[in-house]
Amino acid sequence: MTDVEQRRCTLRERKRRAVQDDVAAIAAELFVANGYEATTVEQIATASGLSPRTFFRYFANKESVITHMFETTGADIADALAERPSDEEPWIALRRAFDGLIRQLTEQPTAVPLIRMIYDTPTLYAGQLRKQAQWSETIAKVLASRLPQSLAADERRLRAGALASAGVACLEYARLEWIAGSGKGEIAKLVDAAMSAVSPLPGQ
Amino acid sequence: MTDVEQRRCTLRERKRRAVQDDVAAIAAELFVANGYEATTVEQIATASGLSPRTFFRYFANKESVITHMFETTGADIADALAERPSDEEPWIALRRAFDGLIRQLTEQPTAVPLIRMIYDTPTLYAGQLRKQAQWSETIAKVLASRLPQSLAADERRLRAGALASAGVACLEYARLEWIAGSGKGEIAKLVDAAMSAVSPLPGQ
Repeated sequence: MTDVEQRRCTLRERKRRAVQDDVAAIAAELFVANGYEATTVEQIATASGLSPRTFFRYFANKESVITHMFETTGADIADALAERPSDEEPWIALRRAFDGLIRQLTEQPTAVPLIRMIYDTPTLYAGQLRKQAQWSETIAKVLASRLPQSLAADERRLRAGALASAGVACLEYARLEWIAGSGKGEIAKLVDAAMSAVSPLPGQ
Repeated sequence: MTDVEQRRCTLRERKRRAVQDDVAAIAAELFVANGYEATTVEQIATASGLSPRTFFRYFANKESVITHMFETTGADIADALAERPSDEEPWIALRRAFDGLIRQLTEQPTAVPLIRMIYDTPTLYAGQLRKQAQWSETIAKVLASRLPQSLAADERRLRAGALASAGVACLEYARLEWIAGSGKGEIAKLVDAAMSAVSPLPGQ
């Protein structure tokens, strides 16, 4: 692939992603207003100004619209983690790496009803759990570089995986509590409390 | 219900459970030998000396045989946790409460191929993840009583939930590593290493 072809390809991918983001945002409103089961692909397509045929060029089915919403979450957390100061303790760096997702949840008006809907729909909940297991793996890869290089590779991988899984478990538990309280509390504080119950965070 | 009726009921329940345990053990061998998809309910029933009709009195379907195998795991861990000395640190008590499951995994010859099969079968994996989320809840209820009574009830619930979820996440990660190594290493040591990567355990 030439440079020009590569740039064109990336541009096409970005455009595709922008359309997917728009459709997902519209679908989120429909899901929240009418329920997941009651919302059809046709309704999502119409509300998005697409024909059903075009919709299927962007999403394989209704469930993949939900999947798309959390598509990059694991990678986003991993990217944020990579940006943290290299001398920051892994658990603290992980907590800070969750800030982007926390901000997103707080700012998105449909977040609470949408996540509640995911918890209440068995197939979506199963997909969400699978996704979170993948987040942990993605995060663990970046986290491993923060652990002592003197450790054997498999020991480092185990520790990074454990830290990432435990951190995501705390994040998830805090999010559950936040949703249970209808999003009234501050999710950032719940995540702080959850993570510091397991291992100290400064200032907690 | 009179006392006699209650005892009879419990006895019936115990017998039912004993049959289910036997069928599950036989099914585990068939699954491991021939694969999950390729094993039919008829084969499980025949190998167990039951008619398919009788099989369905004990299990709703093939998947529920798998579910049965981990039916009491969460409650078993919670029971073990309740038995730990009351002054033991929650994280340490949690680690010790995993010992029963670890022993079971180590002693059961079909454990490694069976769990690998669950990971490799999307519907079973989804069920497993759902189950583990339930374990955390069951464990958290017992763990809460180990946290300072001076804490507000919802703060205590959050901390217990975070500890339980993080502990189960470490257990699960260690189990994954153990399976990836074909069960050759010591799972107990992997769980120790995973949990102590997140928060210190004595002697690690």
